[in-house]
Amino acid sequence: MMKQICLLLVLTSISAFTCAQSNQDSIFIQKIFSTALVQKQGYQFLKVLCKNAGPRISGSAEASKAVDIAYSYLKKFGADTVYKQEVMVPHWVRGNKSEGYVMSNNKKQVIKIEALGGSIATTASGLKAPVIEVNGLKDLKNFKENDIKGKIVFFNGAMEEEHIQTFKAYGGCVGQRWAGAMEAAKLGAVGVIIRSVTMSVDYYPHTGSMGYNDTITKIPAVATSTIDADWLSAELKRNPNLQLFYNINCQTLPDVLSYNVIGEIKGSELPNDIILIGGHLDAWDLAEGAHDDGAGIAHSLEVIRLFKELGYKPRHTIRVVCFMNEENGLRGAIKYGDWAKENGEKHIMALETDAGGFTPRGFSFDTDEKSFAFINTWQPLLHKFGIGEITRGGSGADISRLKGNCIVLCGLHPDSQRYFDHHHAANDVFESVHPRELELGAAACASLLFLVDKYW
Amino acid sequence: MMKQICLLLVLTSISAFTCAQSNQDSIFIQKIFSTALVQKQGYQFLKVLCKNAGPRISGSAEASKAVDIAYSYLKKFGADTVYKQEVMVPHWVRGNKSEGYVMSNNKKQVIKIEALGGSIATTASGLKAPVIEVNGLKDLKNFKENDIKGKIVFFNGAMEEEHIQTFKAYGGCVGQRWAGAMEAAKLGAVGVIIRSVTMSVDYYPHTGSMGYNDTITKIPAVATSTIDADWLSAELKRNPNLQLFYNINCQTLPDVLSYNVIGEIKGSELPNDIILIGGHLDAWDLAEGAHDDGAGIAHSLEVIRLFKELGYKPRHTIRVVCFMNEENGLRGAIKYGDWAKENGEKHIMALETDAGGFTPRGFSFDTDEKSFAFINTWQPLLHKFGIGEITRGGSGADISRLKGNCIVLCGLHPDSQRYFDHHHAANDVFESVHPRELELGAAACASLLFLVDKYW
Repeated sequence: MMKQICLLLVLTSISAFTCAQSNQDSIFIQKIFSTALVQKQGYQFLKVLCKNAGPRISGSAEASKAVDIAYSYLKKFGADTVYKQEVMVPHWVRGNKSEGYVMSNNKKQVIKIEALGGSIATTASGLKAPVIEVNGLKDLKNFKENDIKGKIVFFNGAMEEEHIQTFKAYGGCVGQRWAGAMEAAKLGAVGVIIRSVTMSVDYYPHTGSMGYNDTITKIPAVATSTIDADWLSAELKRNPNLQLFYNINCQTLPDVLSYNVIGEIKGSELPNDIILIGGHLDAWDLAEGAHDDGAGIAHSLEVIRLFKELGYKPRHTIRVVCFMNEENGLRGAIKYGDWAKENGEKHIMALETDAGGFTPRGFSFDTDEKSFAFINTWQPLLHKFGIGEITRGGSGADISRLKGNCIVLCGLHPDSQRYFDHHHAANDVFESVHPRELELGAAACASLLFLVDKYW
Repeated sequence: MMKQICLLLVLTSISAFTCAQSNQDSIFIQKIFSTALVQKQGYQFLKVLCKNAGPRISGSAEASKAVDIAYSYLKKFGADTVYKQEVMVPHWVRGNKSEGYVMSNNKKQVIKIEALGGSIATTASGLKAPVIEVNGLKDLKNFKENDIKGKIVFFNGAMEEEHIQTFKAYGGCVGQRWAGAMEAAKLGAVGVIIRSVTMSVDYYPHTGSMGYNDTITKIPAVATSTIDADWLSAELKRNPNLQLFYNINCQTLPDVLSYNVIGEIKGSELPNDIILIGGHLDAWDLAEGAHDDGAGIAHSLEVIRLFKELGYKPRHTIRVVCFMNEENGLRGAIKYGDWAKENGEKHIMALETDAGGFTPRGFSFDTDEKSFAFINTWQPLLHKFGIGEITRGGSGADISRLKGNCIVLCGLHPDSQRYFDHHHAANDVFESVHPRELELGAAACASLLFLVDKYW
């Protein structure tokens, strides 16, 4: 029975897409790849974004510079229409204190920490309290108020190594970062420190957004590096009464006016049918946001450039959206999504690239059965270019508001092994992006958009 | 017609391998991957090989240490039989001089150089001569003896960026390294300097083997970095008469006794049927040979360990061969191949892993149509684990002597984008290997060997 189902699926696929079409398209897709690899303009753009704008958290002067850079490069790369969409964004600032240590046997041991995005500050003199280690968010259920009250909860849940896709391991672990402070505060904790959500063994604290709830006491939250977390865990076994000190002076300022930056090539036949590609322009404040998500912005802009360079005139409108504020608020996504709905914008497809600048492997699709089966007819062709991992699954946060209002939501899947080594940490810098890997990602996106544009 | 052929191929594949089998095997293969990713013993072995043996060119004390390390880890990882196979290997040594510069407008500009492997020395006072730039080996045909005589030929052919697979670009460019000195000497050149065979823009000269011919005058040959090559090329345009100086004192000493290191798990049903996996134990002397080919040795040993760890008892004999002297002589490969032939060793399959420790993408097969079609029935299963790029093509230099005497020759294909950034250069160090990527490669090899062992 299973065998017959397999066969049926294969036959369905073949009927829709012949080898002859495939050969013709293969030649054009090869041109897309070769042009990207030889010219490397997406990589050059990424350098400008990373080095001239730099760490560009929403509301910052750097984010403002990034808006200008994206705007000017969309024009430079050949978009016929470029505009900014106003959006009010949160403005959280880290401040200038990131101090942490423990006193153990009268010796001071520095613990590298960074505030989680959105955290409140400690008092000016810092926070000092005993520490209780908890193995991730689920494990907290095994503790009572008595165990937690007056303490700093040390969430030491680690990403599970056995997953081939690191995003699966991330999904299973990131809860302690987002909800740790809320859940610990319910039991009377005075602060939290979390193990960085990475598999890398290094000294970088990885920040990221965390949440509060108005009905629960707000307590400060910091991340520490995996090496510091391992040390702290071992030290707690030797000295369960040790006290952890940390001091952060982050704060949330009033909202700031910012922008989604949008650029288009108007469709020659169906200008009102939109094929969207995008990533997010903001980035955490600890580094240059090269992989997260400078790479996605570079991919998106490079698609426009490649189509122009190759003289490809799309039938549908190709729209690049550089979303603002993905990291700590999704305000840009909400704004765009609501506007699109109100305005009756017709989206055929939205492709989000927010998983790094590594060698692309394929795409995941959130769409109906029929559309997926149609897309899957291109799998053998995409496979030839190393991007044949076509799956059903999630797409991305920035395009999630289009759900129900867009036929195909889609996410680019680059190789995921190194992504969380850099994610939200000080080492997410331009130098960690490989020029060819980045350009292959851009070519992958352009190839998929070309097929959607040609055959939809 | 093409459509029908496509369909026929698909049907043939499906008939041989049902979905039910696939589900069962999928569970075991997932275990292989998870075990490798969690335990990371291949990575730990690689650290020992890189840091305790280090740069291990054939004939060196480091190569001797590498033999001991491979021998002891094969035992440690659970091989039931471990032995060394004697082989006489060349013993080329770099010496302690790698000096290069040009005088241009009375200013001395250092040119980073390293001797190519096998090169003769310059005279003790070095070589100084005018330079003529040639765009790779083919371009040399456009020059006459008059243009070349008494000069240093600067082979500045660059790898072609447009190829998605970097090995294709390498193949088109490496000729200038191997044959440059011979071809230039025919026209009266006194030395050669080649652009490093890499796409990376950096200051590392990449060495590699070069050839001489007893009927042609031997002239010294060095590599320079891509940045130095670009500078030299630009400077030559400004000042065509500039003189290049370089000084190297490498030499070839008498052959040395060394070893292939072999470890086996004897087959439970067909102990005389060999499934071989291997890489090469020697490495160029400029670095630790982490990707080239410490990774391949780590993959191979890890296969033995994973089978032991998971209690898998192979039907055929699984044989790991750590070949000596791949880089500058292939003596280990020749020895093993000749011995296997004389001894009537029956090889079902030989898998070579010598393309780096990056995320695996698939395998290429050099075999008959029927065997390839059979192997291809596993493609959907391998695809699930990210290793579904199954192609026909070359396998590897170390197993090439088994051709005609082995049913399936096969090569592991890791992601190729970063490989030549490190190839034969001082940055091919342990730290450039990602633990998860390396272990995925080992798991990929173990999975393929498991399928071959189970279904052959």
